[in-house]
Amino acid sequence: MRRFAAERTRKLLFSSLGFASSYSSSPSSNPISAAAAAAAAMASTTSPPVTYESINPKVKKCEYAVRGEIVTQAQRLQQELQENPGSHPFDEILYCNIGNPQSLGQQPVTFFREVLSLCNHPAILDRDETHGLFSSDAISRAWEILDLIPGRATGAYSHSQGVKGLREAIAAGITARDGFPAKADDIFLTDGASPAVHMMMQLLIRSEQDGILCPIPQYPLYSASIALHGGSLVPYYLDEATGWGLEIFEVKRQLEDARSKGIIVRALVVINPGNPTGQVLSEANQREIVEFCKKEGLVLLADEVYQENIYVENKQFNSFKKISRMMGYDEELSLVSFQSVSKGYYGECGKRGGYMEVIGFTPDVREQIYKVASVNLCSNIPGQILASLVMNPPKVGDESYESFIAEKEGILQSLARRAQALEDAFNSLEGVTCNKAEGAMYLFPRLRLPQKAIDAAKSVNTAPDGFYARRLLEATGIVVVPGSGFGQVPGTWHIRCTILPPEDKIPAIISRLKAFHETFMNEFRD
Amino acid sequence: MRRFAAERTRKLLFSSLGFASSYSSSPSSNPISAAAAAAAAMASTTSPPVTYESINPKVKKCEYAVRGEIVTQAQRLQQELQENPGSHPFDEILYCNIGNPQSLGQQPVTFFREVLSLCNHPAILDRDETHGLFSSDAISRAWEILDLIPGRATGAYSHSQGVKGLREAIAAGITARDGFPAKADDIFLTDGASPAVHMMMQLLIRSEQDGILCPIPQYPLYSASIALHGGSLVPYYLDEATGWGLEIFEVKRQLEDARSKGIIVRALVVINPGNPTGQVLSEANQREIVEFCKKEGLVLLADEVYQENIYVENKQFNSFKKISRMMGYDEELSLVSFQSVSKGYYGECGKRGGYMEVIGFTPDVREQIYKVASVNLCSNIPGQILASLVMNPPKVGDESYESFIAEKEGILQSLARRAQALEDAFNSLEGVTCNKAEGAMYLFPRLRLPQKAIDAAKSVNTAPDGFYARRLLEATGIVVVPGSGFGQVPGTWHIRCTILPPEDKIPAIISRLKAFHETFMNEFRD
Repeated sequence: MRRFAAERTRKLLFSSLGFASSYSSSPSSNPISAAAAAAAAMASTTSPPVTYESINPKVKKCEYAVRGEIVTQAQRLQQELQENPGSHPFDEILYCNIGNPQSLGQQPVTFFREVLSLCNHPAILDRDETHGLFSSDAISRAWEILDLIPGRATGAYSHSQGVKGLREAIAAGITARDGFPAKADDIFLTDGASPAVHMMMQLLIRSEQDGILCPIPQYPLYSASIALHGGSLVPYYLDEATGWGLEIFEVKRQLEDARSKGIIVRALVVINPGNPTGQVLSEANQREIVEFCKKEGLVLLADEVYQENIYVENKQFNSFKKISRMMGYDEELSLVSFQSVSKGYYGECGKRGGYMEVIGFTPDVREQIYKVASVNLCSNIPGQILASLVMNPPKVGDESYESFIAEKEGILQSLARRAQALEDAFNSLEGVTCNKAEGAMYLFPRLRLPQKAIDAAKSVNTAPDGFYARRLLEATGIVVVPGSGFGQVPGTWHIRCTILPPEDKIPAIISRLKAFHETFMNEFRD
Repeated sequence: MRRFAAERTRKLLFSSLGFASSYSSSPSSNPISAAAAAAAAMASTTSPPVTYESINPKVKKCEYAVRGEIVTQAQRLQQELQENPGSHPFDEILYCNIGNPQSLGQQPVTFFREVLSLCNHPAILDRDETHGLFSSDAISRAWEILDLIPGRATGAYSHSQGVKGLREAIAAGITARDGFPAKADDIFLTDGASPAVHMMMQLLIRSEQDGILCPIPQYPLYSASIALHGGSLVPYYLDEATGWGLEIFEVKRQLEDARSKGIIVRALVVINPGNPTGQVLSEANQREIVEFCKKEGLVLLADEVYQENIYVENKQFNSFKKISRMMGYDEELSLVSFQSVSKGYYGECGKRGGYMEVIGFTPDVREQIYKVASVNLCSNIPGQILASLVMNPPKVGDESYESFIAEKEGILQSLARRAQALEDAFNSLEGVTCNKAEGAMYLFPRLRLPQKAIDAAKSVNTAPDGFYARRLLEATGIVVVPGSGFGQVPGTWHIRCTILPPEDKIPAIISRLKAFHETFMNEFRD
């Protein structure tokens, strides 16, 4: 009965919205319905105000640990330090909770910023003084980019997939990277990678019976987005013992398990290089994954935002697009690759630039993706420009090439050294083991905590790794994210720590970390 | 039975995601479950690939007319013109479908672009040449802004509500505008106003039983967002006969009507100045609306993105915040005000800057809004900076003040002239009446079409105004949006046309429009 009423109302109100030619109700100039309304008004009840209880339960269910409680506490401590220096046993908060390089002092790449600056204020492009301030290839690149934008209007909404010419530039960059052609029409520019992930979840998830396979541990954007869109996260475990290996057998087992419970599994998320785990997949492993998605009819959602962050000699990044092309697949594999300007050596998180390359969807489905993109009009143009730049950096012979390469290599080599130093430090701690960060920006050490610490955490209603992270923050000012925010094998405990603190501070951080850990273990030793 | 299975699965999969301490399944190193998986695999079926039928029905239901079919057709014609000049009876496409001023040649405000340019490349701030290229107050403003950003890192993620100091600047701008205090903590910076609207819909809508009162005609972002979040749009009609007046009696009637159908109405959307209608609400009317929302327990969602676009002497913009404060309401009215850098005299659509000011929500609900904001990390920093600039433009005595005012007044006065010229033109057409654009960027003339035209539209399965708009495009290159995309009283037909074409082209546009209309009427005259 209630269901019927709701259905009828939906039909009346929803289908009426202007796209059909009739409405369920007419304007109040109609005196008869006005009288009816007055009568109805007397019988009506007042809507509840907005309470926690009355908001969308999907919103309440969603969690995003990277900016969770520990970070809120850190912000509080930071304020206390500002207002009352010396109030804590440290003099600054070190945000190792999030891959936000420039917040920890990483400098932006000069060429990228020059071009952005010029595109923001094209009026100075043909002034003499400009040649004294900007490199000549930045000036010529700015001209090229302006010529790609209709009317050179960097302040206009673009095509909802992004400026066509910038998408062509990105497609050229992908083609150069992979050795296989990419198409501008397959590129959707977005405000960072996160909105792109949301768009795909929104498209694929109809109800909680739709499942998305995600690695555990995972980057919590995926769990948050699945929760917000009302789907089911189907976990598959990465194997810590083999350096966070992705075992196709495990993925298959979880797929079958979910299916046996009535879940329609729609997509497989793979994060490569891994976040929070730092592993870089081998080509053989990627081939297995592609074959698996093809065979099982899954969309492969490939988070490839760390594609430039590789720190070991014996590994290299291969895009899933490249692997699938090498295997002879074209449009018959449904594949979405996410890329962002926030990571890599550029680390331009605040610019919110990114794109997804969408392959193997039918035209009518792509039209729906475009429609969702169009509701938000377009992504920000400086972010679009920057995405085209990171996919097409200066080339040999360009005036900026040498200094660009020096900046790029300087950042990447420093990241590799920092990753190694912190990995060694974690491995030196009692009860802690830490896999190598082959790529990305994180270490995810495993903590074997004494039972007393686990009990103490339980007594304050906190997960043991959350308890450890809070103690670490309060003692040292170092902000990490508890492993429980990413998911982990039950009974194991981890923290995620970025490799991003400035290199000159790493020795001091390691000392503080070691001293804290020793004190903590002494306090709770069984 | 099925319900039970789904419920159980949800519990197993969903609750398991890492935030609790246990999982429903363990890694595949367990040989027993591995064997079970192998057995299950044999019995499993393959997921369906992604088809139009298998995507989220809410996505399919969503419509966004402003970038709909007519625009797609226009883009096709534009390409044909490029490839084959002379192939159509016009030589350019005039996009009057969307409030995108810079795409039609409006120049950006110099001061804003100077500051953005400098903040993008702070390295040039203390170079001598910079003083030759940028105004001194742009340079000092850039320094001020950089000092508001932690570590001067314009490439870092900010606080998820936006940089605190920029929110303080915006709050100061609101305070100056309204004469009542605003708080930085109430500001959420967003990538344009659209994501802010989505956030509120996501928060408020639990199911199709939750309704949102929206004006008809409305800006289709609202219908699109309500559809995407699975709610019900509850229409209230603006009265065309009184210049698109908002009659509280009509709103009340529709509220009661919806409630009698079991809809829980959660919020009232008011667009002021109106889009697509251009009306500016009177203070008395706004007081009624505030009182109504207070009494009925509705969130007032105030779309105030056209607050700087007023073209008539006898009207002025009052924010709903100001009105509610004048009435003595503080936190007891739930009010969200949306503002954007895309409109006003600045028209910086491509920068995707905007904010919402959120008032009258309990701390636990605000925390949920913050959480949703945090899942996307933050809005783009250049957009945040620009939002702070439009709310704090140059002041008397600043070096840029005179030229800034000249640019601002030049744009606004030209918009007023264009609005008047186009209004007069529409009113001169046979069977067309057009209300004044008191504000915003649009005219929404009513077309009284001959029955033969209505029949002709029906025979090609199109709404009559869509038929007219397509004919107009094909004959003149002018792109407008059919009224059916915004909603209108059944049996009436409108088009929305922006007032944004360059002023020197307006006479030619009017001639083309008149000639087309005459031909159209002659063809279909009853």
